[in-house]
Amino acid sequence: MSRARFEKFKQVLRQRQHDMTLLTDQVHKAQNISAMLRTADAVGMAEIHMVQPSRGRLVYHHTAGGSGRFTGTVVHPDIQTGMGVLRDKGFKLYAAHWSDRAMHYREADYTQPFALVMGAEKEGLSDYAAEQADEHLTIPIIGMVESYNVSVAAAIILQEAMHQRQQRGMYDRELDEWDPAVREILFRWMHP
Amino acid sequence: MSRARFEKFKQVLRQRQHDMTLLTDQVHKAQNISAMLRTADAVGMAEIHMVQPSRGRLVYHHTAGGSGRFTGTVVHPDIQTGMGVLRDKGFKLYAAHWSDRAMHYREADYTQPFALVMGAEKEGLSDYAAEQADEHLTIPIIGMVESYNVSVAAAIILQEAMHQRQQRGMYDRELDEWDPAVREILFRWMHP
Ligand SMILES: C[S@@+](CC[C@H](N)C(=O)[O-])C[C@H]1O[C@@H](n2cnc3c(N)ncnc32)[C@H](O)[C@@H]1O
Ligand SMILES: C[S@@+](CC[C@H](N)C(=O)[O-])C[C@H]1O[C@@H](n2cnc3c(N)ncnc32)[C@H](O)[C@@H]1O
Repeated sequence: MSRARFEKFKQVLRQRQHDMTLLTDQVHKAQNISAMLRTADAVGMAEIHMVQPSRGRLVYHHTAGGSGRFTGTVVHPDIQTGMGVLRDKGFKLYAAHWSDRAMHYREADYTQPFALVMGAEKEGLSDYAAEQADEHLTIPIIGMVESYNVSVAAAIILQEAMHQRQQRGMYDRELDEWDPAVREILFRWMHP
Repeated sequence: MSRARFEKFKQVLRQRQHDMTLLTDQVHKAQNISAMLRTADAVGMAEIHMVQPSRGRLVYHHTAGGSGRFTGTVVHPDIQTGMGVLRDKGFKLYAAHWSDRAMHYREADYTQPFALVMGAEKEGLSDYAAEQADEHLTIPIIGMVESYNVSVAAAIILQEAMHQRQQRGMYDRELDEWDPAVREILFRWMHP
């Protein structure tokens, strides 16, 4: 391991946002999950959460653009568990979802702890997730299509989250190299 | 054809942005092209341009989320032709590209006529396209990955373009139903 690579690890780790994550509600296509994992890494997520599709297996490549290895994944058996775990951590649950109570995605506050909940490719968000979400966020559409690709929609919203957090200086943290959690992650990255 | 559907066609057509397009520089994966076509339709593009990959065929589904049929596609044999055609129309050429002369994508002006040039999955933007582009735009990354998925990167930038155009009221146009170009498109949409 070169010195430069070690410094890069520390720089990325320093900017990791432990209070911002993604929760996919039965999204199942490998390329969509891979693209979301890549975006999650790019905006500084330490881990993402996924709900196991009730039909089919959850398959994804940890390799898209080199991501995956650096953003952890947690798989939940159902949406109730996934949302429960995140709510217990104190996260607001923001669902990307078109509804009467939805707000424009740029109007939400992404500087507080939050999890962005994304619906499945065909079925969209489950009724449970829609009911339990604290907010519904929509991305405007001015065309004939009815929705964006799920990984595209996630990226558009997360880019706004990153923007707000950058404005607030939330990526300018010091790294405590003596923190056991930090040492554990650094060790894992260095020894794949 | 129901009255409601006809009205929807007219509303979408009224908001079409004829001075905003996309040019893909040898992007070849079907799912990426389909996702970009879907995003292009969603933000109001009347057509997109693609450069034929030098290896492999250009394959894409016109069906992703129902798009494609409503956003035209123009295929060029090479990037020189593609950029030439768009420049002749008076479009600024904005390349999504990481370089020394790049600016943050939110700093560009998307209210003037422009084409967003996207690089290929592996090779990125060609040298020719990078040299000839009027501006280079980058989307920040705070992680280990080196880039976003190409359809994700296109969507992030186009969402900002749509935002700027909405602020300027550029989607609030009247539709001239007697314009032959408008009648031609309406006819095509009504008779697939
Ligand atoms: C392909 S869409 C699902 C479409 C599905 N037919 C439906 O009716 O919900 C997959 C997911 O992407 C997100 N999404 C797509 N377009 C969106 C938009 N315009 N606003 C907010 N979220 C969107 C939502 O989380 C959605 O559940
Ligand atoms: C997967 S990337 C290409 C990566 C390639 N290895 C390279 O070095 O350029 C495909 C295209 O997406 C766009 N893109 C991806 N990430 C970007 C970013 N952070 N800023 C600007 N454009 C980006 C660019 O147009 C790029 O050519």
